[in-house]
Amino acid sequence: MSNRRVMVVKSGGAAGFAEWQGCFAALDPALELIYWDDAIQVPERIDYALLWDPEPGWLARMPNLKVIFGSGAGVDLIAADPDLPRHLPLVRMSTPEATQRMGEFVCWAVLSLLKDGRRMAIAQAERRWDYFEPPFRAQHRTVGILGLGNMGQRCAEMLRGLGFPVIGWSRTPKAVQGVENYAGAGALDAFLGATDILVCLLPATPETQGIIDAATLGRLRPGGGFVGVGRGMQHDLDAIMAALDSGQLAGAVLDVFEPEPLPSEHPLWAHPKAILTPHVASLPTKAERAGAVAAAIAAYERGETLPNLYDHVRGY
Amino acid sequence: MSNRRVMVVKSGGAAGFAEWQGCFAALDPALELIYWDDAIQVPERIDYALLWDPEPGWLARMPNLKVIFGSGAGVDLIAADPDLPRHLPLVRMSTPEATQRMGEFVCWAVLSLLKDGRRMAIAQAERRWDYFEPPFRAQHRTVGILGLGNMGQRCAEMLRGLGFPVIGWSRTPKAVQGVENYAGAGALDAFLGATDILVCLLPATPETQGIIDAATLGRLRPGGGFVGVGRGMQHDLDAIMAALDSGQLAGAVLDVFEPEPLPSEHPLWAHPKAILTPHVASLPTKAERAGAVAAAIAAYERGETLPNLYDHVRGY
Ligand SMILES: NC(=O)c1ccc[n+]([C@@H]2O[C@H](COP(=O)([O-])OP(=O)(O)OC[C@H]3O[C@@H](n4cnc5c(N)ncnc54)[C@H](OP(=O)(O)O)[C@@H]3O)[C@@H](O)[C@H]2O)c1
Ligand SMILES: NC(=O)c1ccc[n+]([C@@H]2O[C@H](COP(=O)([O-])OP(=O)(O)OC[C@H]3O[C@@H](n4cnc5c(N)ncnc54)[C@H](OP(=O)(O)O)[C@@H]3O)[C@@H](O)[C@H]2O)c1
Repeated sequence: MSNRRVMVVKSGGAAGFAEWQGCFAALDPALELIYWDDAIQVPERIDYALLWDPEPGWLARMPNLKVIFGSGAGVDLIAADPDLPRHLPLVRMSTPEATQRMGEFVCWAVLSLLKDGRRMAIAQAERRWDYFEPPFRAQHRTVGILGLGNMGQRCAEMLRGLGFPVIGWSRTPKAVQGVENYAGAGALDAFLGATDILVCLLPATPETQGIIDAATLGRLRPGGGFVGVGRGMQHDLDAIMAALDSGQLAGAVLDVFEPEPLPSEHPLWAHPKAILTPHVASLPTKAERAGAVAAAIAAYERGETLPNLYDHVRGY
Repeated sequence: MSNRRVMVVKSGGAAGFAEWQGCFAALDPALELIYWDDAIQVPERIDYALLWDPEPGWLARMPNLKVIFGSGAGVDLIAADPDLPRHLPLVRMSTPEATQRMGEFVCWAVLSLLKDGRRMAIAQAERRWDYFEPPFRAQHRTVGILGLGNMGQRCAEMLRGLGFPVIGWSRTPKAVQGVENYAGAGALDAFLGATDILVCLLPATPETQGIIDAATLGRLRPGGGFVGVGRGMQHDLDAIMAALDSGQLAGAVLDVFEPEPLPSEHPLWAHPKAILTPHVASLPTKAERAGAVAAAIAAYERGETLPNLYDHVRGY
């Protein structure tokens, strides 16, 4: 009896496929990987799928498919398939390594706002000794995290270790050590009113589309900051620039955009109060992600519950 | 009976004096402040001194002087007075607020090296979407702290909270939770050989002059980083640039220089692997420093031991 199983892969093209093969060979030698283009010849052989952007309709033609794994944190491109077999578990990518990397990035971004890293970078570019006294310590700046999920919770813990008071907003109530929690749409205004530096770590859903707009930014404590690491569709860039210009925001760090790359002629690139980074906040390596998928497959085959399941109703 | 006492101040000039007066009025109304230039008319009235750069010889003429307070972390300009009354306690400025600010700066600097903040700043200046994958997580980079004193210990605690393994070097053995300690000159090479990112938080002494040279940098693990926040006299800038160019160092963050400001024609300003900041790592406000001095005076008058005493033999 063999425990041979087959996983179809569509993430990172042909070059990515070879890398995925290398990772899984070390982790689960009995798991055969098939490239997406070849799978349609043998749809009945496919047990698992690891995908970023499947062509709509194809998954529905694989009669023995058991679990669908997203290769990224967001699975919107998979969920968008109208013929998606919705009775199958769809697992979002969430690894402790990605969570750690996000925590590091958010701490770097929040500290960059506290210390005015943008001002220092501009002065360096001009070879100018621009001495100034950053007014605040961490203890003076409450960080409000929109989205207290896997990533938001690790960010909260790391920020608290640096001395920042931290509060968080989520859909359902969350008990996180030392972090005051505001749950649901009705609590958003109170949350924003208690926040100096806002960090957006929300998933892309209809409810979060354009959530970082003039109204939201206007409710923050004046002179605060914004860190955008969720999804670009959440940002109203004109409102963010207006808040930076009025002083309502003292600074912003943006990692996600719509579209990506942000066009080189966009005025935000040169804004003296904005730090722009190219969607690098949290990139788990393929080896890290393969480890998470192999562990989830093993758990599934032992009959255990799968973690990080996508919920078609709430949309994340 | 009155508890009126007099403190002479020389730190930040006449404008600074007015600020110091405002701070102490709130903390210790019975403490009269006298500006340095006026004190010499009434030398016998002076009980305490708060100084950055006294003119040599004057302190020796104050017969009732009890304690000398430095207004900065380093008291080398006071200790350099050949007529300094060496039997009097000389207190270095060390406040929990300054220690916290240093911890924030060092975490920002170390995270900037981990995430390659310099590369991201250069790409932004060129309006270029420069996607790349930072290879390491905090867990992969051992931070070695030269100088495990007040500031080094708080930095170690904050860096550990971010996930970095931390080791430290000091003159005498130190027991710091979770931080492997290397003590004394004989342990320096072993310490450097175990370090990826080196943070220098040493005081300015004859032993630390030029300590960041080619030999020291050459002993670090290849491809590491350097954060210089002690004193400029510790840095061999040519050796630091050579290590950046050879790849022995992947990046550096420098906050202190000799002389300051660093001349605008210095090549380091434009180095693609170096972040330069204008001696801003840790600036306690006058209010924070006045609080520390007022508390120390009160402790002294209750007969308690003064903290953070300068030691003329060890030189810090
Ligand atoms: N920039 C990057 O490099 C990068 C990398 C990875 C991920 N991300 C982004 O980070 C997001 C978060 O990832 P994660 O793993 O932490 O996801 P997660 O565990 O699903 O957490 C999402 C959080 O958002 C909350 N939330 C969702 N919809 C909400 C709503 N309408 N109102 C209030 N709260 C809402 C959830 O509330 P409940 O707890 O009540 O469910 C949860 O706390 C991802 O979706 C992705 O957009 C960015
Ligand atoms: N960039 C800025 O804005 C800024 C601001 C404030 C301070 N600083 C710098 O930071 C330094 C540290 O401040 P701190 O308050 O932490 O001072 P501290 O408490 O006196 O600590 C100094 C540390 O250095 C160690 N050390 C001194 N000489 C040594 C030697 N020859 N070999 C090995 N270890 C040695 C000491 O060892 P022991 O523990 O055995 O005594 C101690 O651990 C200051 O002196 C100043 O230069 C910079």
